[in-house]
Amino acid sequence: MSIANRIARLGTETAFAVSDDARAWGAQGHAIYPFHLGDINIPTPANIMDAAAKAMRDGKTGYPPAAGIPELRAAIAEDISKDRGVIYTMENVSVQPGGKPVIGKFLSALMNEGDEVLYPNPGYPIYESQIQYLGGVAVPYGYEMTARGFRLKREQIEASLTPRTRLFIYNNGQNPLGAESDDEEMQWVADFCIRHKLWVMSDEAYFHMRYSGRSQSIVSLPGMQERTIILTAHSKKYAMTGWRLGAAVGPREVIDVISRLNVNQESCTTHFVQYAGVEALRGDQSGYLRIVEILKERRDTLAAALRKIRGVSVYVPEITFYLFPEVTEVYRRLGSKSAQEFRKAALHQTGVSFCSREHFGRPLPGEERVYIRLAYSGIDKGRIEEGLEGLKKFWES
Amino acid sequence: MSIANRIARLGTETAFAVSDDARAWGAQGHAIYPFHLGDINIPTPANIMDAAAKAMRDGKTGYPPAAGIPELRAAIAEDISKDRGVIYTMENVSVQPGGKPVIGKFLSALMNEGDEVLYPNPGYPIYESQIQYLGGVAVPYGYEMTARGFRLKREQIEASLTPRTRLFIYNNGQNPLGAESDDEEMQWVADFCIRHKLWVMSDEAYFHMRYSGRSQSIVSLPGMQERTIILTAHSKKYAMTGWRLGAAVGPREVIDVISRLNVNQESCTTHFVQYAGVEALRGDQSGYLRIVEILKERRDTLAAALRKIRGVSVYVPEITFYLFPEVTEVYRRLGSKSAQEFRKAALHQTGVSFCSREHFGRPLPGEERVYIRLAYSGIDKGRIEEGLEGLKKFWES
Repeated sequence: MSIANRIARLGTETAFAVSDDARAWGAQGHAIYPFHLGDINIPTPANIMDAAAKAMRDGKTGYPPAAGIPELRAAIAEDISKDRGVIYTMENVSVQPGGKPVIGKFLSALMNEGDEVLYPNPGYPIYESQIQYLGGVAVPYGYEMTARGFRLKREQIEASLTPRTRLFIYNNGQNPLGAESDDEEMQWVADFCIRHKLWVMSDEAYFHMRYSGRSQSIVSLPGMQERTIILTAHSKKYAMTGWRLGAAVGPREVIDVISRLNVNQESCTTHFVQYAGVEALRGDQSGYLRIVEILKERRDTLAAALRKIRGVSVYVPEITFYLFPEVTEVYRRLGSKSAQEFRKAALHQTGVSFCSREHFGRPLPGEERVYIRLAYSGIDKGRIEEGLEGLKKFWES
Repeated sequence: MSIANRIARLGTETAFAVSDDARAWGAQGHAIYPFHLGDINIPTPANIMDAAAKAMRDGKTGYPPAAGIPELRAAIAEDISKDRGVIYTMENVSVQPGGKPVIGKFLSALMNEGDEVLYPNPGYPIYESQIQYLGGVAVPYGYEMTARGFRLKREQIEASLTPRTRLFIYNNGQNPLGAESDDEEMQWVADFCIRHKLWVMSDEAYFHMRYSGRSQSIVSLPGMQERTIILTAHSKKYAMTGWRLGAAVGPREVIDVISRLNVNQESCTTHFVQYAGVEALRGDQSGYLRIVEILKERRDTLAAALRKIRGVSVYVPEITFYLFPEVTEVYRRLGSKSAQEFRKAALHQTGVSFCSREHFGRPLPGEERVYIRLAYSGIDKGRIEEGLEGLKKFWES
């Protein structure tokens, strides 16, 4: 074999190993309670499916433009402008086959080899993988638990800055923590990025996946729109994960480069799916509202059940469809030797499958407490109750 | 701005500029005869659209596996095995959002920086762009016209070999030439690649887009399957260009790397589209046969019309949906100063829009004759006749 050297720098989503474990255990006839994957077991709203089918029958089956059909680019620009309180036009939008492609394209367009990139850890594992794969230096920053939820470790961010720091990945409404900045923290991030002339990717995949309050985007702060690429996606808001539809939104010069990467890498995003994307944004929103309602009920069910377990504490964020409970006491009580042993014991004793903190990056120095991540997007309320009952029994035994 | 240095090495499909010219001219109220784009103006067969709509309604809207759904991987393995006379299983298949993603992933998986890659010129422009973008050295090889069609310039290939040559891009059933190897030439290519231990990407996007005879794949020759990645796609065969569905097929070790690149870059290929892909391969083939029939009629119409023009000669290949006529005499008669002037004159005098040889790579030393490329996949028979009538008048004037 002669696999290229760069592949040694390529990571993956280790959470897929958790899916494999769960699938294997289920195949042996055991009940599985799937809390491990950020997928959604709710149908895509019917009006969106209808629009896709209609566009397909209408012959939207040839190549669309690399940057996306004008209707969708305009709809996304309008939507982002309205929600974020700033002005974008279709020239600021490059349609992508999902949110994920924005990560690699943002880095490809703006990061030189050897440049340092600040990124969240725990965080979405593809940030680190793509920074390293593309020849950058991945510099993690962490969070600390406070009474108001998870907060950025500002001293760590300040201390990590070097003359080579060029980019900042900011995920407000964060996977896996559900962390969200208050106004003061967001302004601090903006000041930091402006002061140090950093380009920012604002991962807003969960922007609309919220249960109260209102999401804020860092592009709404003065000086930020011109240095920020927004990652947006239809995936979560409209239960369209498997449709592969998202976009990069930002300054035109960068967006043009990103679209040129599309010409080279994928040609374009599935044509008729883009018409479904227009209907999603401009059509009836009751499907979206129903998705949020279902998820909120699940969140509350899961949070209540977790809080009943001795030794578990959990902050309940108003955004994302994840809970990130602390389970240090349970971990010690069971005499667990590793996060993976702890995870597998729960799977094999109760069928409850979840990810560990380790699936979202190597723990940073000073991390003592044990956390796990439970996704409630792929499991119904009744099954949440059932699974957590078993988990309580096992963990308290 | 601070666009990354690597972007300076990123090319594009310059043929899009031809589309822009045609669109602009059409917008002024002129009739346009579009021969410039390799898109297909024939609907996707109904059974394939039905399968997509059904899968969507059945909830195939969440994440599929990164390498593709097992049913499609198996169907592609079976299809390729049958057509190519070798054995592949689903482990040899990584489903991709189109054929194009295979180019970058093949190079990413197997080419180190500084490695030299032999690739066809004239050829699909993304080969050169991706080789250079990913840090390789793009080494073009050409073709020469013979009585039996275009043939590889073997001496040029031999002379281009260096100790750094590692990969060979082979496009049999070639865009833009329609060049196809006979048995002897294909064996020569295989011997060359085996002798020099080269990895091969066999671009078989047009494998089924043929009008007589039978396509051969280089993987069927001894010693080739283990060093070849096939680029295959549903795009041409089933008029599914805008659906974005293709696959990389090859040795498992490379395919696993390619799928890991998918985890990082796109997550996966649109879920319900993959079920349509299964129906395409395993269901009723009458739609495909009808597409070939329509294209054959267009090819014959176009070839006959070209041959009636004084100073035009054309070889008519049995594969692809392109003709690559020689127009040297017309070019000189009109006193054209550049290929672009020649192309634009035809557009503005007759509405006939086509690509130049230059859209498929920089002409190689020794090329004296002038060629253009006419695609007949996006224009009906009647319009072909009409457009060519005007072209004859203008070019003979």
